[in-house]
Amino acid sequence: MNKRVAIYRKEHFNAAHRLFNPAWDNQQNEKVFGKCALPNYHGHNYDLVVKVTGEPDPETGYVMDMKDLSDIIKREVVERFDHKNLNLDTVEFKNLNPTAENIAVVIYTILRPFIDPAKDLQIRLYETARNFVEYPA
Amino acid sequence: MNKRVAIYRKEHFNAAHRLFNPAWDNQQNEKVFGKCALPNYHGHNYDLVVKVTGEPDPETGYVMDMKDLSDIIKREVVERFDHKNLNLDTVEFKNLNPTAENIAVVIYTILRPFIDPAKDLQIRLYETARNFVEYPA
Amino acid sequence: MNKRVAIYRKEHFNAAHRLFNPAWDNQQNEKVFGKCALPNYHGHNYDLVVKVTGEPDPETGYVMDMKDLSDIIKREVVERFDHKNLNLDTVEFKNLNPTAENIAVVIYTILRPFIDPAKDLQIRLYETARNFVEYPA
Amino acid sequence: MNKRVAIYRKEHFNAAHRLFNPAWDNQQNEKVFGKCALPNYHGHNYDLVVKVTGEPDPETGYVMDMKDLSDIIKREVVERFDHKNLNLDTVEFKNLNPTAENIAVVIYTILRPFIDPAKDLQIRLYETARNFVEYPA
Amino acid sequence: MNKRVAIYRKEHFNAAHRLFNPAWDNQQNEKVFGKCALPNYHGHNYDLVVKVTGEPDPETGYVMDMKDLSDIIKREVVERFDHKNLNLDTVEFKNLNPTAENIAVVIYTILRPFIDPAKDLQIRLYETARNFVEYPA
Amino acid sequence: MNKRVAIYRKEHFNAAHRLFNPAWDNQQNEKVFGKCALPNYHGHNYDLVVKVTGEPDPETGYVMDMKDLSDIIKREVVERFDHKNLNLDTVEFKNLNPTAENIAVVIYTILRPFIDPAKDLQIRLYETARNFVEYPA
Repeated sequence: MNKRVAIYRKEHFNAAHRLFNPAWDNQQNEKVFGKCALPNYHGHNYDLVVKVTGEPDPETGYVMDMKDLSDIIKREVVERFDHKNLNLDTVEFKNLNPTAENIAVVIYTILRPFIDPAKDLQIRLYETARNFVEYPA
Repeated sequence: MNKRVAIYRKEHFNAAHRLFNPAWDNQQNEKVFGKCALPNYHGHNYDLVVKVTGEPDPETGYVMDMKDLSDIIKREVVERFDHKNLNLDTVEFKNLNPTAENIAVVIYTILRPFIDPAKDLQIRLYETARNFVEYPA
Repeated sequence: MNKRVAIYRKEHFNAAHRLFNPAWDNQQNEKVFGKCALPNYHGHNYDLVVKVTGEPDPETGYVMDMKDLSDIIKREVVERFDHKNLNLDTVEFKNLNPTAENIAVVIYTILRPFIDPAKDLQIRLYETARNFVEYPA
Repeated sequence: MNKRVAIYRKEHFNAAHRLFNPAWDNQQNEKVFGKCALPNYHGHNYDLVVKVTGEPDPETGYVMDMKDLSDIIKREVVERFDHKNLNLDTVEFKNLNPTAENIAVVIYTILRPFIDPAKDLQIRLYETARNFVEYPA
Repeated sequence: MNKRVAIYRKEHFNAAHRLFNPAWDNQQNEKVFGKCALPNYHGHNYDLVVKVTGEPDPETGYVMDMKDLSDIIKREVVERFDHKNLNLDTVEFKNLNPTAENIAVVIYTILRPFIDPAKDLQIRLYETARNFVEYPA
Repeated sequence: MNKRVAIYRKEHFNAAHRLFNPAWDNQQNEKVFGKCALPNYHGHNYDLVVKVTGEPDPETGYVMDMKDLSDIIKREVVERFDHKNLNLDTVEFKNLNPTAENIAVVIYTILRPFIDPAKDLQIRLYETARNFVEYPA
């Protein structure tokens, strides 16, 4: 039988962004991204759920210490993005459009080295309560 | 590595229904479906979460424009079922028992032609906060 | 200092209804109530929050036993309205339009005799997560 | 007996802002407002709950048509602030620090003329799920 | 016009407790408190919402700095009760039955000296999502 | 095409526990589990979501009657753990550390014999709104 358990930890950060492809002019950006491309930015309360899957350690009963997972997320992701302008203040989105999809992939790439390679990692990111994404799918 | 991302969009509608198999008499329906079979209907606030999975477009960073997805769900599903009696007012449930399972399959069938065939589609439907279903599983 | 404490208990029921003033013809009802007046009913998951305010009993530390309050709400309100059609199946709304406002007043009137007269009673009723009412205000 | 009922309608908008008193220099702003004063803005999903209190109309059973209330909020508040930078894009916060407290007072002032003067109006604004304000208190 | 604004800050803690009046024997405690009196304790995730009401400072636009409020709640309440057994580990409930009502009054008494006396303070405590209390009422 | 549908039912229970490996001394337990190892226990409101996956019965439209599923969960899990001390009052955790991971596996093992073997079973357990687990993963 499958012995693997998934654990989930939820954190959040607040950030400003605009959707903008630097290879396009303003007109093309507004046509494709609508009000999400408005030049002075808007923002979101991002809810971030990180899933780690593996076999629980028989001595602790933990897949991973949730406190350690929370600390890693706060140090590597929340500190980096919270109260920031994703387009202006971060190296990750200088040349990458900060859609929810791209933010999720970036967060996965940031966190992957800090999680035991024997375990799987998945990111769910809520841009609003009604719009959210998951990576890898 | 897997490059696929899932996007989710949440919408809702309010409808009346009763659980009723037209091939059975009232007594058999009440025996199987209990108060859900009461003849004058009851109702729910249905929360609908639509998941679309695929590779993000490198130019937009979108798996699919969430606004387009929202518009499709509103036009094809919400307009059809919102403030309706599922048993009496819809062709889909004239001869099909409107259980949450069947409603989810029907919504999948309605939406599938409007979503890029290269992408996967999944429906989650909340009948209440404590009862919900997913299709395909 | 004010020694009064409020306690809240949340219950829920699912019901069908339509908004309809029997003194008006169908045309006038549809003009005023829009799709809420559609003849075959729609429905909601009603969340009901009952607030009772008074001084805690010094021996128990309770304003009122939450279990007793829950039992009263279930017996007097949930049993009466759950899985019912408010317009057709209840005496309370035979001649009263089942708007959220009126349902809240009716629930207050039903519960008031079962609550200690020395304590205050208030009803909050969620028709949806975005539409709710409170009585008395 | 009190015949007044309160109705509540919830809407939302997403906006960027920074906390900044233009009468102070950057150093003083950062000392008082911390990371909320960072120059390139951050943002929030604002949830807005509007409460209107009055006696229900005996013919409709409505304190106010929730659809009308929703339309007014969307036209006067959401259209004005959604996907905007409150500091840069709005006249209201050109010279007023966009704290949750000030935003709530501004929204009250915007909506008050559109609500029946015989009825009371109150604004609750969620900046995050853990920080929210109410006006008038 | 009323210039007062209320601000709310939500925090949480997890604790064990049992309902028990030390002046009664076990039989009487079980009769009154049912399974809440079971001798080996049970527990809750307590959600705590603290409301402070006053006039915003014209320079900051704050009724009170939410970060300061959060820090006070964490230092004075969360540190004291989180991951504790309320009956065994705290001086406050050595001789006081830890009902939600009494916990709310105790938290009010703890926090009152740390809040500007010109401002009002109110505590809302969720014992579960369906049982909660407020003090002062 | 895949004909399988998943149904989900949510229940809850409140319990006390401490994290403790009986093979270790107190010092080692405190080093690994921090405040979760405090000797007098703390507690949680556990939210439990049970997922059953299979093909809907063509006559009822049900994968499984949600009422039956709810009754099984209440009888086998909630009655066993609600208002209990997991470490002291249950045979399951006498020698097993009651981490969320282990509780989820135990609940799966308890429920599996009561669910049709042709259907899949999965457990999601929320220890808090921010910490949750899933088994099998």
